[in-house]
Amino acid sequence: MHRTRVRIVEDVLDANDTIARANREDFERAGVTVVNLMSAPGAGKTTLLERVLPTLEGVRVGVLEGDVQGSLDADRLARLHVPVTQLNTANGFGGECHLDANMVRSAIPALPLDELDLLIVENVGNLVCPAEFRIGEDARVMVSSVAEGDDKPLKYPLMFRACELVIVNKVDLLAHVDFDMERFASNLDAVHPGVRHVPVSARTGEGLDGVRRWLKAVGSGRREEAPVR
Amino acid sequence: MHRTRVRIVEDVLDANDTIARANREDFERAGVTVVNLMSAPGAGKTTLLERVLPTLEGVRVGVLEGDVQGSLDADRLARLHVPVTQLNTANGFGGECHLDANMVRSAIPALPLDELDLLIVENVGNLVCPAEFRIGEDARVMVSSVAEGDDKPLKYPLMFRACELVIVNKVDLLAHVDFDMERFASNLDAVHPGVRHVPVSARTGEGLDGVRRWLKAVGSGRREEAPVR
Repeated sequence: MHRTRVRIVEDVLDANDTIARANREDFERAGVTVVNLMSAPGAGKTTLLERVLPTLEGVRVGVLEGDVQGSLDADRLARLHVPVTQLNTANGFGGECHLDANMVRSAIPALPLDELDLLIVENVGNLVCPAEFRIGEDARVMVSSVAEGDDKPLKYPLMFRACELVIVNKVDLLAHVDFDMERFASNLDAVHPGVRHVPVSARTGEGLDGVRRWLKAVGSGRREEAPVR
Repeated sequence: MHRTRVRIVEDVLDANDTIARANREDFERAGVTVVNLMSAPGAGKTTLLERVLPTLEGVRVGVLEGDVQGSLDADRLARLHVPVTQLNTANGFGGECHLDANMVRSAIPALPLDELDLLIVENVGNLVCPAEFRIGEDARVMVSSVAEGDDKPLKYPLMFRACELVIVNKVDLLAHVDFDMERFASNLDAVHPGVRHVPVSARTGEGLDGVRRWLKAVGSGRREEAPVR
């Protein structure tokens, strides 16, 4: 019984990787770099995008917004006058807790790829499953809020291992929460040695220049030299 | 293809409910009330338990601790001298993002049911899937942190609908985050009319008397009259 279950999961992930490669080819053909942005619920992905997207001079950016239900975040981002496409996992996908390659594939016809250099996919808020499903992205980035605690890399190692950049958000709360940045960095290094992290506050703007520089470099096809500090 | 997928999910949930009923019978036979405690990662479930469990006079309480990996939370709770049993979803369950009835069933032989009135199951930090899987509990409770934002009931309605009590944690941060308690209450009422919520700070102790009263009533088999204010 249990053995069967694991087998199904592996088959699902296998099929997902096949579709993710097809997505990747479509994005490459269109010259669009894709960033898969992940976090726990309420870590501040949308607020971060509200702050940085209007200031990516020279990079044409769009957003694919993944949510279980509703369009609250897409509505917020649409005010920025960037193209936003909503993908709800509750409609026809059984209320999934993550985006998978097939969901993203179903959204591709609705994306204005010809008008974009950079597509940010805002994943469903969840620190477990999104890390298991490639969607055809070039880079995976996560947002971890200091309000969640500095132990999170140890508790959700797959997510922190999957990302090439960890944005540590809400540093304006550091004086009010039990979060030690050095302990976080050490926990992060234990599960993903060498990965970069950048402390920011999407609310006050602190540290966002690093995120902007990184996104601009990635969106211009210069990912290798993308700096964050 | 898609139809098949939904069918599998339904079968899995069906099997889960069957096992959950068996768990429930075992817990009832032992005279143990079971609370399924859920939240997003870092909402403060463990800190809350650290604060309230040592002060539930007259109620013998134990914890079943669900984590993807590691035993950080179980180690914290073991210091309180309450029986804690660790259940890791990464070992043999494929890194699941939630506890299901079968995982809890596999832990039952390790639980000291004869010595307990109340068992708290601390679920994996996730606002989506745990709400879909009954585990044989009597009551479902969730913790929502004000740092996550007041829009969360609208974005994760299934979770907020599944619970009979919503503990709104980290109210000590209210002055530093964009969270309006009235808007939260209105959003909560929109997805789950009439459900009770109690604002607390596990860090400062504010509001925890309500949680204690509720847990003591539930743990004494007087769930109907459990007050929170």
